[in-house]
Amino acid sequence: MLTVGSLVLGVFDMARAVAFWTAALDYVPRGGLVEDDWTVLEPAAGPGVQLALGLSETPVQRHPRVHLDLYARDAADQAAEVERLLALGAKDVDWDLYPEDPDFVVLADPEGNVFCVIDTSHG
Amino acid sequence: MLTVGSLVLGVFDMARAVAFWTAALDYVPRGGLVEDDWTVLEPAAGPGVQLALGLSETPVQRHPRVHLDLYARDAADQAAEVERLLALGAKDVDWDLYPEDPDFVVLADPEGNVFCVIDTSHG
Repeated sequence: MLTVGSLVLGVFDMARAVAFWTAALDYVPRGGLVEDDWTVLEPAAGPGVQLALGLSETPVQRHPRVHLDLYARDAADQAAEVERLLALGAKDVDWDLYPEDPDFVVLADPEGNVFCVIDTSHG
Repeated sequence: MLTVGSLVLGVFDMARAVAFWTAALDYVPRGGLVEDDWTVLEPAAGPGVQLALGLSETPVQRHPRVHLDLYARDAADQAAEVERLLALGAKDVDWDLYPEDPDFVVLADPEGNVFCVIDTSHG
């Protein structure tokens, strides 16, 4: 029996990454444990997919092969969440592959990892 | 309210990727919809994190910046699942960063995306 345990993001600075992602997703370190090179985050509110952070020297790709999609309820929620994430230290990404009328906004976490914030109500 | 919607894997061949990942995780295309360039998979058994497949020309990294950790129950389950995944078309990866007594096995999907199968009972 195989399950999706966690998505693992490479990070350069563990403390910075833990601070960002716990606030971004309302996650907490599993078992309260933060290691210098490895930390598993889980939802504060209960079961759900984990996000793991692993120290990595691998550079971020311009168009990442693997990335995270975060879901917002609607366009207003998406806009509010993007603002909140930017205030937490996310960076705007000058994304060159936006379609017309995209349902997503491309950001990067403080480690440079690119992710999307999706308006799930978008037609 | 932000949630982890899906992990997005880049793929070269959508049909091949859908075949592999639906069998690997017992997932199904959401709404039965498979597009040439984009498919969202969800657990056949009910709610859970989605895996999205997006056509991508970005090469796979030798030590990927972002990857998926799949969880097995114990060492026997891990061994059985690794065999099953190899039979489905996964590839062995000659991983150069194994620690002593690792709790994980590194594989790649038919698209080259590296992932790990974890023995979650490992001390």
